[in-house]
Amino acid sequence: MRATLIYGAGDVRVENVPDPVLREPTDALVRVLRSCVCGSDLWPYKSRPATEQGERIGHEFLGVVEDVGSEVSGLRRGDVVVAPFVWSDNTCDFCREGLQTSCRHGGLWAADGVDGGQGEAVRVPQAQGTLVKLPAGEDSALLPSLLTLSDVFPTGHHCAFTAGVGPGTTVTVIGDGAVGLCAVLAAKRLGAEQIILMGRHKDRTDLGRDFGATDIVAERDEEGVERVRELTGGDGTRAVLECVGTEQAIGTAFAVARDGGTVSRIGAPQYEKVAMGFGEFFRNLTLTGGVAPARAYIEELLPEILDGTLEPGRVFDRTVGLEQVPDGYRAMNDRTALKVLIQP
Amino acid sequence: MRATLIYGAGDVRVENVPDPVLREPTDALVRVLRSCVCGSDLWPYKSRPATEQGERIGHEFLGVVEDVGSEVSGLRRGDVVVAPFVWSDNTCDFCREGLQTSCRHGGLWAADGVDGGQGEAVRVPQAQGTLVKLPAGEDSALLPSLLTLSDVFPTGHHCAFTAGVGPGTTVTVIGDGAVGLCAVLAAKRLGAEQIILMGRHKDRTDLGRDFGATDIVAERDEEGVERVRELTGGDGTRAVLECVGTEQAIGTAFAVARDGGTVSRIGAPQYEKVAMGFGEFFRNLTLTGGVAPARAYIEELLPEILDGTLEPGRVFDRTVGLEQVPDGYRAMNDRTALKVLIQP
Repeated sequence: MRATLIYGAGDVRVENVPDPVLREPTDALVRVLRSCVCGSDLWPYKSRPATEQGERIGHEFLGVVEDVGSEVSGLRRGDVVVAPFVWSDNTCDFCREGLQTSCRHGGLWAADGVDGGQGEAVRVPQAQGTLVKLPAGEDSALLPSLLTLSDVFPTGHHCAFTAGVGPGTTVTVIGDGAVGLCAVLAAKRLGAEQIILMGRHKDRTDLGRDFGATDIVAERDEEGVERVRELTGGDGTRAVLECVGTEQAIGTAFAVARDGGTVSRIGAPQYEKVAMGFGEFFRNLTLTGGVAPARAYIEELLPEILDGTLEPGRVFDRTVGLEQVPDGYRAMNDRTALKVLIQP
Repeated sequence: MRATLIYGAGDVRVENVPDPVLREPTDALVRVLRSCVCGSDLWPYKSRPATEQGERIGHEFLGVVEDVGSEVSGLRRGDVVVAPFVWSDNTCDFCREGLQTSCRHGGLWAADGVDGGQGEAVRVPQAQGTLVKLPAGEDSALLPSLLTLSDVFPTGHHCAFTAGVGPGTTVTVIGDGAVGLCAVLAAKRLGAEQIILMGRHKDRTDLGRDFGATDIVAERDEEGVERVRELTGGDGTRAVLECVGTEQAIGTAFAVARDGGTVSRIGAPQYEKVAMGFGEFFRNLTLTGGVAPARAYIEELLPEILDGTLEPGRVFDRTVGLEQVPDGYRAMNDRTALKVLIQP
């Protein structure tokens, strides 16, 4: 089959790889209907050292079950399913607590002999725990929004949820990428009263307004902080959703948080340390968030996608075929595309 | 009157200072019955640059109301009262939310013309909001435990509370100082199931056992982490109460936390940055805590001190008169005393 591999910074290729086969009785084979490129795929795309051997890449996909192992129940050939970006048994203590990213028998796509999502098909380990059956056909117009259940929408939700967003909460979202926009949508869904979106790409912040942002702050750094403070009577917001992953963004996050407030981070950290010294201590600021256990949220978020209330799939502004995946990476890296959908 | 001033590292003196007088109609005058030395007083005692002019010091006290301003109601001459270590109006929005440390009209003792607690008397700003009347006489045997309501016990409570400690929680407490021991007591009170106390001073950890610690880990750093992991089936504890304030202690805290767990810090940070990179992100670890709004917790903690259920005053293992305060600092700094009570 054809699948995407990364060989180094700026070097993504679509090549022939062995067809996946069932290896464990807990496996399933899934033919990919839709996949996409994640903001986090851009970090290796920007910086991975070049190697002779490529590595599989991609961790968001939705597809059709082709075959299941003998120990997989509840799934059968022809089912349309979505896979969260970490696979997990969904039965261990961590999974039962909703922390499937720490599953005792789970792991990552495109690592340790497991397929990546940006290909024609995937062998899914722990298939019964990992895959969620969708009441949708192979040609459903909802597929883009349903695909977001794999990562970007639950990631935005995890950010808002762990920050404690609820009815009436004031929220700042830092970053107008796809995750930031999904964090806006999630905060709105949870009842936030004021949602200030910090971002400077008008097409993106316009979508942010559609998703529920009440204010847009295009300024950055100190000027941006000043602007958020103006919008909040000088105090900042109770919840801050940090959807970038840089040290600079974390610094901004603390600066726009209200005393006693919570910063939730969901951008994969491109830093080792966080500035949380005496000032943040005295202000009783909390830093929470982390990699989203997408699996924990799919059932909760699904109904509002099915009934059309929520359209997180609007974050996709370009669709490519599998052979054009390298173009998709380029477009996202150049910021000419917000998020690229792949239709193999 | 006589009061304590600090002139530099190792240089604490008791001197004559002007008697406090009412300045604002919201002030009260309090004659100090008991004060004490805080672990955080030791930071300037260790490192403050020497100056010609001394600075007042001390922020924990309990005393008798001598006089009140015209706008103070609910308090009168002769009342025995305790003062939290930050004064506050207790009516602003932050105070109503239980974050009196961020009070819009509050401030610190021993700063900006406000008296310190280690003296004969104190002018108390925002007296009605700050002071809590105690149903105890001037000679009550409960005074040491009641004094802990000023700081060390609510600080331990804030640490456990913000870490989410409740019935059945597994907890690690890092540090066997007075705050660490009070954190043990608070965690026990909130229903923690397992309380692992990391500390290497046997007399202190013995008191920790009395307060509710189920396990003592005397080892430090990697060895200590290994030991906590052994005691928790390899996983670490859900709550970690960091009661030291060093970068090393914070590092240990993350290392002994269970995935998805919460580290609460209450030791005044002697660091600018916290190591919370990709590993802590992927493990969904939270860092919370901060300076304790002691005022918010006094009414909740008071009854169990009055009825003798809780004896946080056991952290005091030495009593000095006001003139011997310099000896008290020396003893705490040399670790020959755990916490020094001052009886002016």
